[in-house]
Amino acid sequence: MDKILRIDMGAPGGPKTTVDPLGKYEGMGGRGMTSMVVSEEVPADCHPLGPENKFVIAPGMVTGSAASTSGRISVGCKSPLTGGIKEANAGGQAGQVMARLGYAAIILEGTPADDQFYKILINAQGVQISSAAEYKNLRTYELAEKIKAEYSDKVAMIAIGPAGEMRMAAASVAVTDREFRPTRHAGRGGVGAVMGSKGVKVIVIDDAGTKMRKPKDAERFKAANKRFAEGLKRHAVTGEGLPAYGTNVLTNVVNEAGAYPTYNFKQGQYDDASQLSGETFAELETQRGGNPTHGCHRGCAIRCSGIYVDKDGNYISKQPEYETVWSHGGNCGICDPDVVARLDYLDDTIGLDTIEMGATIGVAMEAGILPFGDADGAIRLLEEEVGKGTPLGRILGAGAAATAKAFGLERAPVVKGQAMPAYDPRAVKGIGVTYATSTMGADHTAGYAVATNLLKVGGDVDPLSAEGQIELSRNLQIATAALDATGFCLFIAFAILDQQDTFDAMVEIINGMFDINLTGDDVVALGQKILSMERDFNRRAGFTAADDRLPRYFRREALAPHNVVFDVSDEQLDTLYNW
Amino acid sequence: MDKILRIDMGAPGGPKTTVDPLGKYEGMGGRGMTSMVVSEEVPADCHPLGPENKFVIAPGMVTGSAASTSGRISVGCKSPLTGGIKEANAGGQAGQVMARLGYAAIILEGTPADDQFYKILINAQGVQISSAAEYKNLRTYELAEKIKAEYSDKVAMIAIGPAGEMRMAAASVAVTDREFRPTRHAGRGGVGAVMGSKGVKVIVIDDAGTKMRKPKDAERFKAANKRFAEGLKRHAVTGEGLPAYGTNVLTNVVNEAGAYPTYNFKQGQYDDASQLSGETFAELETQRGGNPTHGCHRGCAIRCSGIYVDKDGNYISKQPEYETVWSHGGNCGICDPDVVARLDYLDDTIGLDTIEMGATIGVAMEAGILPFGDADGAIRLLEEEVGKGTPLGRILGAGAAATAKAFGLERAPVVKGQAMPAYDPRAVKGIGVTYATSTMGADHTAGYAVATNLLKVGGDVDPLSAEGQIELSRNLQIATAALDATGFCLFIAFAILDQQDTFDAMVEIINGMFDINLTGDDVVALGQKILSMERDFNRRAGFTAADDRLPRYFRREALAPHNVVFDVSDEQLDTLYNW
Repeated sequence: MDKILRIDMGAPGGPKTTVDPLGKYEGMGGRGMTSMVVSEEVPADCHPLGPENKFVIAPGMVTGSAASTSGRISVGCKSPLTGGIKEANAGGQAGQVMARLGYAAIILEGTPADDQFYKILINAQGVQISSAAEYKNLRTYELAEKIKAEYSDKVAMIAIGPAGEMRMAAASVAVTDREFRPTRHAGRGGVGAVMGSKGVKVIVIDDAGTKMRKPKDAERFKAANKRFAEGLKRHAVTGEGLPAYGTNVLTNVVNEAGAYPTYNFKQGQYDDASQLSGETFAELETQRGGNPTHGCHRGCAIRCSGIYVDKDGNYISKQPEYETVWSHGGNCGICDPDVVARLDYLDDTIGLDTIEMGATIGVAMEAGILPFGDADGAIRLLEEEVGKGTPLGRILGAGAAATAKAFGLERAPVVKGQAMPAYDPRAVKGIGVTYATSTMGADHTAGYAVATNLLKVGGDVDPLSAEGQIELSRNLQIATAALDATGFCLFIAFAILDQQDTFDAMVEIINGMFDINLTGDDVVALGQKILSMERDFNRRAGFTAADDRLPRYFRREALAPHNVVFDVSDEQLDTLYNW
Repeated sequence: MDKILRIDMGAPGGPKTTVDPLGKYEGMGGRGMTSMVVSEEVPADCHPLGPENKFVIAPGMVTGSAASTSGRISVGCKSPLTGGIKEANAGGQAGQVMARLGYAAIILEGTPADDQFYKILINAQGVQISSAAEYKNLRTYELAEKIKAEYSDKVAMIAIGPAGEMRMAAASVAVTDREFRPTRHAGRGGVGAVMGSKGVKVIVIDDAGTKMRKPKDAERFKAANKRFAEGLKRHAVTGEGLPAYGTNVLTNVVNEAGAYPTYNFKQGQYDDASQLSGETFAELETQRGGNPTHGCHRGCAIRCSGIYVDKDGNYISKQPEYETVWSHGGNCGICDPDVVARLDYLDDTIGLDTIEMGATIGVAMEAGILPFGDADGAIRLLEEEVGKGTPLGRILGAGAAATAKAFGLERAPVVKGQAMPAYDPRAVKGIGVTYATSTMGADHTAGYAVATNLLKVGGDVDPLSAEGQIELSRNLQIATAALDATGFCLFIAFAILDQQDTFDAMVEIINGMFDINLTGDDVVALGQKILSMERDFNRRAGFTAADDRLPRYFRREALAPHNVVFDVSDEQLDTLYNW
């Protein structure tokens, strides 16, 4: 990875490609790369859908090598949902394929004058840009079929669905998995709308003729990688829970903890949660001939993904993630796994963030658009309204905050305009701190305090107490920012938080890859550097301490069954970035 | 005016009324009162539609006295449109009637638990609150008929239409005029949505049995008032232009200056502007049996309002203001006065801000919802969509910024979420500075630099140059904040800026009213105090220098015919509040 591909989509006469050396971006990867490019090159006060924003794609530092479980790809830009900096990352095959072609970043700049959409083909021979008129309005699953037919299923695809074409603030960027299905999404913050504003429908990446990235110190790398993979197998979460049930292993855990946001964050337990549990999904998948244990990209040692089929064995969707099952399930009072899987499929194929859309439908239910529990209605909202860009679909596609604004409601569970994921911040206060203070808006992956609050990974901090949550969230946000730069999947965190040897092995993989000698302190410094860049961008974009807050109703309305409010003080929140 | 009426709409068991002495609010009126109450009592980070916001109504300091042209009433709250502090004021009869009953402020607090709407009757006997269920969804003209039938046309009405009931961010608060028509609106910033969130459909104020407010020094007051009224008559704008043509005297002036925003701020001149001029409207009104010269409240010496009728002499609307004629007219490529008057009526009766709605329809036209120039389509959008709260109506009712967000457009002419009025900031740079820096969002009335840039009132500052605009806007914003506290109509500014004697007479009216000895410096200090309170509220609500900016496309896209961009630097903008 020694070069950066820039494509000026607004160049006179059509898109113009340049390939640059890394320069000041040397050594950066994943979120480190995307956030540095956005921070350095995008005017913080620009419009997210205007020509001054940039759309950056970057594989992680070790992505494309033999490093276990390291296939993540980051997408970055100024977010049309939050108005701040955004990094969203995904699994799937694209990261590895792109890295093997040597591109540390693809940067889409400008906006086309002609409102046309383009296809970008990147392979060992170079870059070709052509009209994507034939793909207009195609959903991502249909698009994948066409691309596969044209290029085989050995390539990787990065694409938007109709939601991205319509520049909806909840639009995602789809990345194909090992079966060339568009199931892995850089979901959050409307990155798909920014790709759409650049006039790019699909990027096809073909690494034919290239080889796996070689570590500079092969022995050191190989030995560390072995220790690392063993560590992942050894830990209960990465070695057992996630392979068996996927992320949805959490439904029962979070519900039992009284932290499962139900009916648009009205209560913390859902009576029918067991019908949506990972155990239930895995059993159905096994019974029906799906697959509960599946890797989203080659070389994953955890294999938390899966394939969900209907009672006749026909594919419905990939195994929905916990946050999706929650957002479309308990949050909307829907307890049918087949419906939830169908909604997951619709989000993926229309090109939408599942968290934002489930939260948005919850708000729409509170607004009286349809009753809680209306499964057919929820499907119709995605299929007929959002998917077709009707006026109601435009409201919903703009996300939970915009929907609450359109219907004049206070109760929008958002921070910095982005919907909260599947953990009520009143009953898991560490994640509440992350929601409030993350540079990304409400985002569980930015500092997953649920691990320590509920799963007792990396220590034990009482989820219902305000004590210790700031330090917990701070440390996790720093570690996560660094991890998001490496290309390793965030889920390795369970193992490296609990097992020092596995953490050391991860650092050693990087050291072997680049023949350097990073320490744990260097990892912390990298995380702090990334967060500081992001926070500085947001400050320049106009964010203040007032943006590092949960909506006030989380301090006012007590959540059953614990009858707790969010009570980490503003003064405490304002210390998060003290380092 | 020696008391404040507070009504807790969220009290257990139903609304609860208390009457307090003025206390720390002694001496405040109009915008001074509303902004001080909001600043002191509303948590800056609360949700505008939640129970912690307050809705404040306050007549000006001398309103209800014999002071000429002093009938203004201010409405204040945290704005659902901008997220900052808001004061919107209106003419009509309510200010005088309320002041004569002795209320310096009415403060609506809390939100009803039962989602019901209430009617508040205020008279010399006290306050009665009853269900407004029978008025549900009534448009303001229909409501006025019912209220008139019940209470006579001697009372005053403050009310919301369906837009306010639906808590739309573009909803206004209607105030009845001398004919008991709901034509005068506290329009901007969604104050109607906040009144709606308080569950108040209508406030009926009956001053029967009360008398005009008496000045403490009657002789001083009377003499000053005479000099003041003479000054208004003497000045060309207040004595001739406004009475003859109303505010729409500006269409030709602004269009000739190349500062008339046309087709959603795409160009600075509109070919068909003459069809929309104040001269044209006045001629039609005279020919058809309307009235081009009419006062919106008793005791106005300017009489800039009017009555617009169709070719058969039937009432269509009040004479639309210049900003309305522009927003629904040239901004949308519509040049039929009858259509513009009809749109004005629809805004008034549905309860919508005419500036926000015209700008929003312009954005909708750019989004392709309907073509520029589609008069029938524009009527349909208000009548069938916004008025009935369809999904498209919900988008439009949320304003120009929300509409651009829903349709993924950059070109939303807004500052702090509020649509720009009828002067392109590239060609009238002083008003651009006011748009950018006002505590209110884009608002021409906050510091009407057009007066000096184009009309050469109060001096002469080249509208196309960046030079001198900061000082001009600063001085006007300070003067306006003070004026908005007095209850005098803003239009007296033309006379008092040019005629020192008229300014002195205005100050003397206040001195005679309260038997005090204010000087011009005290007026400046009052204006600065109000602005500082407002700015501090906005700072606490999360506003920064990044919010004191025009959208970047005003710096990028040159405006014909002068081919100018907005080029007052950010550094200059950031000096506006230096005093």
